[in-house]
Amino acid sequence: MKYKIAVLAGDGIGPEIVAQARKVTDAVVQKFGHEFEYTEALVGAVAIDKVGNPYPDETHELCMNSDAVLFGAIGHPRFDNDPGAKVRPEQGLLAMRKKLGLYANLRPVNTFKSLIHKSPLKTELVDGADFMCIRELTGGIYFGRPQGRTEDGQTAYDTCVYSADEIERIVRLGFEYAGKRRKKLTIVDKANVLATSRLWREVSQRIEPEFPEIEVEYMFVDNAAMQLITWPKRFDVMVTENMFGDILTDEASVISGSMGMLPSASIGVHTSVFEPIHGSYPQAAGKNIANPCATVLSAAMMFEYAFGLMKEGALIREAIDKSLEAGVVTEDIADGKKAYSTSEVGDWLANYIQ
Amino acid sequence: MKYKIAVLAGDGIGPEIVAQARKVTDAVVQKFGHEFEYTEALVGAVAIDKVGNPYPDETHELCMNSDAVLFGAIGHPRFDNDPGAKVRPEQGLLAMRKKLGLYANLRPVNTFKSLIHKSPLKTELVDGADFMCIRELTGGIYFGRPQGRTEDGQTAYDTCVYSADEIERIVRLGFEYAGKRRKKLTIVDKANVLATSRLWREVSQRIEPEFPEIEVEYMFVDNAAMQLITWPKRFDVMVTENMFGDILTDEASVISGSMGMLPSASIGVHTSVFEPIHGSYPQAAGKNIANPCATVLSAAMMFEYAFGLMKEGALIREAIDKSLEAGVVTEDIADGKKAYSTSEVGDWLANYIQ
Ligand SMILES: CC(C)[C@H](C(=O)O)[C@@H](O)C(=O)O
Ligand SMILES: CC(C)[C@H](C(=O)O)[C@@H](O)C(=O)O
Repeated sequence: MKYKIAVLAGDGIGPEIVAQARKVTDAVVQKFGHEFEYTEALVGAVAIDKVGNPYPDETHELCMNSDAVLFGAIGHPRFDNDPGAKVRPEQGLLAMRKKLGLYANLRPVNTFKSLIHKSPLKTELVDGADFMCIRELTGGIYFGRPQGRTEDGQTAYDTCVYSADEIERIVRLGFEYAGKRRKKLTIVDKANVLATSRLWREVSQRIEPEFPEIEVEYMFVDNAAMQLITWPKRFDVMVTENMFGDILTDEASVISGSMGMLPSASIGVHTSVFEPIHGSYPQAAGKNIANPCATVLSAAMMFEYAFGLMKEGALIREAIDKSLEAGVVTEDIADGKKAYSTSEVGDWLANYIQ
Repeated sequence: MKYKIAVLAGDGIGPEIVAQARKVTDAVVQKFGHEFEYTEALVGAVAIDKVGNPYPDETHELCMNSDAVLFGAIGHPRFDNDPGAKVRPEQGLLAMRKKLGLYANLRPVNTFKSLIHKSPLKTELVDGADFMCIRELTGGIYFGRPQGRTEDGQTAYDTCVYSADEIERIVRLGFEYAGKRRKKLTIVDKANVLATSRLWREVSQRIEPEFPEIEVEYMFVDNAAMQLITWPKRFDVMVTENMFGDILTDEASVISGSMGMLPSASIGVHTSVFEPIHGSYPQAAGKNIANPCATVLSAAMMFEYAFGLMKEGALIREAIDKSLEAGVVTEDIADGKKAYSTSEVGDWLANYIQ
């Protein structure tokens, strides 16, 4: 099969880590006899600099015509302390999510034996944790309108909106993934306070009988923030709305101790986007020291989730495991031992696959 | 001085733990020659049962005429899986917050040497953590209108609203507390997405120059959720809006390992409320096993924050420290050693003070 891949490397370390993911996918593609056509496009701060728009129309066009998008990272420090900047890299991200209909952000959280000591949690709490966070990505307070200020500028407002259809789509996905895993679904909301959460619960409870084999629990978001730390192994699949998901998925990623190793997939109506969960890490840009594994694992998710090519994905995962065993790792996880460069890790992984 | 104290014991273990706090305050009051007049009133599920309203008018009247409110806990399991129940204990809590103008919820987070091993975090990360979370409590999406459903019932919406005045009031409090502590203030928002957060930042940046001795940092809420776990000692005073505060303060409380020991104060326009951060723990109700320390420490906060009686507060804290040293503790923190009952711990503390 021939697949069209849009490559959006973005800012900071984006280009370096995406280059390694391409090496690895090239090796996989060759081995299994697929054909990949890569096309690069601008996104983020670099797109603002070049064309004044963090998600240019040509980039969008390309994504719409691609079978999958491989994404690096966006963000630049010069925007960080200037929330009032007219055009911001994040706007590009939000525009991309909305225009591609990327309604579900999937983040598997799991641990790697050789990295578990890096977790801030006690080993026995987090060792073996393995769950999937599903965050709704195109609704809620991120996109609800009206948003703005009263005329005198002295009052600001945001609107959180969810339709039953939006909720049903993502909750169904939660049930389906739970069905493929350990058959437990945790639906996180704040139904004791929010009208939108009460609709989430209503819709979820309506769907529940269709999946009798799935054990469902409803959990308030404040409780979920605690349970993620005190008992992460209780989770299998967690599904939640956009803003709660923003907070909880970041919290979840950090407990594993493997932040630099965690990929994500954003499933869309038009195409899907695969990207590491970490940021653009501007201090490391151009230094060939960043950890490419999260991006490489995002490529593994691309094979599995976008193309249903499970063996291909599994081989990439195997390569990553072996590289950890062999100690072929970047400085962030080298623990004082020899550190390899970004491209050396990429080469090793591609080689292993060949 | 004579102080009027409203006692709202509430549900579950509320009455037992509040009784111990009263024993302790009685001992303090006697020792220092103050006079306390306690008046009890209904709140929570028990108030729903007796008068059909979780925050009855008489209770509100009493609070309005009191110098401080000592609060136990509310909530009953029969409401937990019924988000659609017409009258719910939480509504009483929200009504109380709004009507008493309890705009600032203060939660000191600190650790106790003898309990630090109970933290889910590695000891070196959390040992010595000592910070104050300040949560805005009467604004934001909890109270913003419109809230509800479209006519067809298929779309739900909530509104997050903040005025510059509401923001200024709480951010000022943050600066003031930081000034009394280690002079570092972290203001948590989501200014890259929300209009309300951008107003938070604008107002905060306007106030900043008035407090040149305070180091201010702005942090996105998703990052804060990570930093609380990876580096809790970086925080001194954190201030944030209502919903973010709900999530982050619960996350913060659990990392200390001392959940059963953490008090809170809700500072109000009309009066202030002092209560443990834990819930009504219905499984333990009536068994005389619940840990009264968080409530006793809430009473210490009452002396300090409501009446400016610092020595009185300090003596209560000393008593708590000594009880831990002496191993006079309830089963939740007894670690297999002899466990004392709720009332035995209260007696010991009152005795120590006398
Ligand atoms: C940059 C920001 C708008 C974005 C979000 O909040 O969604 C980021 O935090 C993320 O989680 O991808
Ligand atoms: C019960 C609920 C409404 C309440 C809140 O969200 O404020 C609780 O979680 C709290 O933090 O006091």
